[in-house]
Amino acid sequence: MSLGAGGGRDEIEALIALMARLPGLGPRSARRAVLHLLRRREGQMAPLAAALARVAETARDCPVCGNIAVGGTCEICENPARATGEICVVEDVADLWAMERGGAFKGRYHVLGGTLSALDAVGPEELGIPRLVERVQAEHVTEVILALNATVEGQTTAHYIAEALERTGASVTSLAQGVPIGGELDYLDDGTISAALRARRAL
Amino acid sequence: MSLGAGGGRDEIEALIALMARLPGLGPRSARRAVLHLLRRREGQMAPLAAALARVAETARDCPVCGNIAVGGTCEICENPARATGEICVVEDVADLWAMERGGAFKGRYHVLGGTLSALDAVGPEELGIPRLVERVQAEHVTEVILALNATVEGQTTAHYIAEALERTGASVTSLAQGVPIGGELDYLDDGTISAALRARRAL
Repeated sequence: MSLGAGGGRDEIEALIALMARLPGLGPRSARRAVLHLLRRREGQMAPLAAALARVAETARDCPVCGNIAVGGTCEICENPARATGEICVVEDVADLWAMERGGAFKGRYHVLGGTLSALDAVGPEELGIPRLVERVQAEHVTEVILALNATVEGQTTAHYIAEALERTGASVTSLAQGVPIGGELDYLDDGTISAALRARRAL
Repeated sequence: MSLGAGGGRDEIEALIALMARLPGLGPRSARRAVLHLLRRREGQMAPLAAALARVAETARDCPVCGNIAVGGTCEICENPARATGEICVVEDVADLWAMERGGAFKGRYHVLGGTLSALDAVGPEELGIPRLVERVQAEHVTEVILALNATVEGQTTAHYIAEALERTGASVTSLAQGVPIGGELDYLDDGTISAALRARRAL
């Protein structure tokens, strides 16, 4: 989308194009965001540029679990208070952050970085599944919790991982499916209600 | 909002907080955007940081009209093809960009940077209105088009500017109000329909 103010404002146009590639921003809202920053060049634009550059420079994938780490292994892998006997497998760093916000899991993670997909040529190697199996054996892990999304791809990947881990002797579990806390039955899809009914518990 | 992954990820948290201050992004979508960038550190995060830094460094307010300029006066003021006899007064750079997208105006601009507001201590001086009056006289401007928003603040400011320009002899006009192109009467507010009726024209 052109700014319409003649040539030469290429730098601002390039910035808008980069902003428009962020999730949740389109060309219009990217332009609004850039204008907002242009009016706050000292207070917001320069600090944002510096923060982005710093994180782009220092952030790495944790070589152990695949979480985002600022230099070396991530803070969860380095934290001696985190139990080494449990590994929670998640698809994505976003899912790891979601688990951490819950605060209920005190073990360590394995971030797959996606799901198995023949179409996109994502195999077990790309997801670090052989590395996970090695880790389960080397770290004497007793339980692997599969916290994958309740999608077809997530569940296919979960089954593959469960099979791959069979010979390690670790127990493989997955998150319970059911009615979310505060959830109203009327607004839930049929699949969730059926799953919650199948997994019903005695009060 | 905490990432929940222990201390030390302060840099990523700081980045999310900065992103969350952009219009159209809240804490959740800022986190999503940062995660998106963290997965594309080379391809998107570093270029975005560089583009922001470059624009923050080079962008200035045009000393003549208040438009955003990359070094010195802006491209519109520097363009000899733009008529010097007409000045279009807009509240904001965003409005200037909107006018330019229309492509119908071939003159120059004056960007107020806001509207008169006793509460926010924004007076004529802050909006550069004395400078506009000087410019109208010095550049022999024959018409000043007030393209201010159709809000109470915009219209109050428009009246003030019209009065301030009275002694310059330039004719002061404002954008026509009426039914937008493609607009359906059923979806228009009553004020717009009344204004369009009052300004009706012979076919």
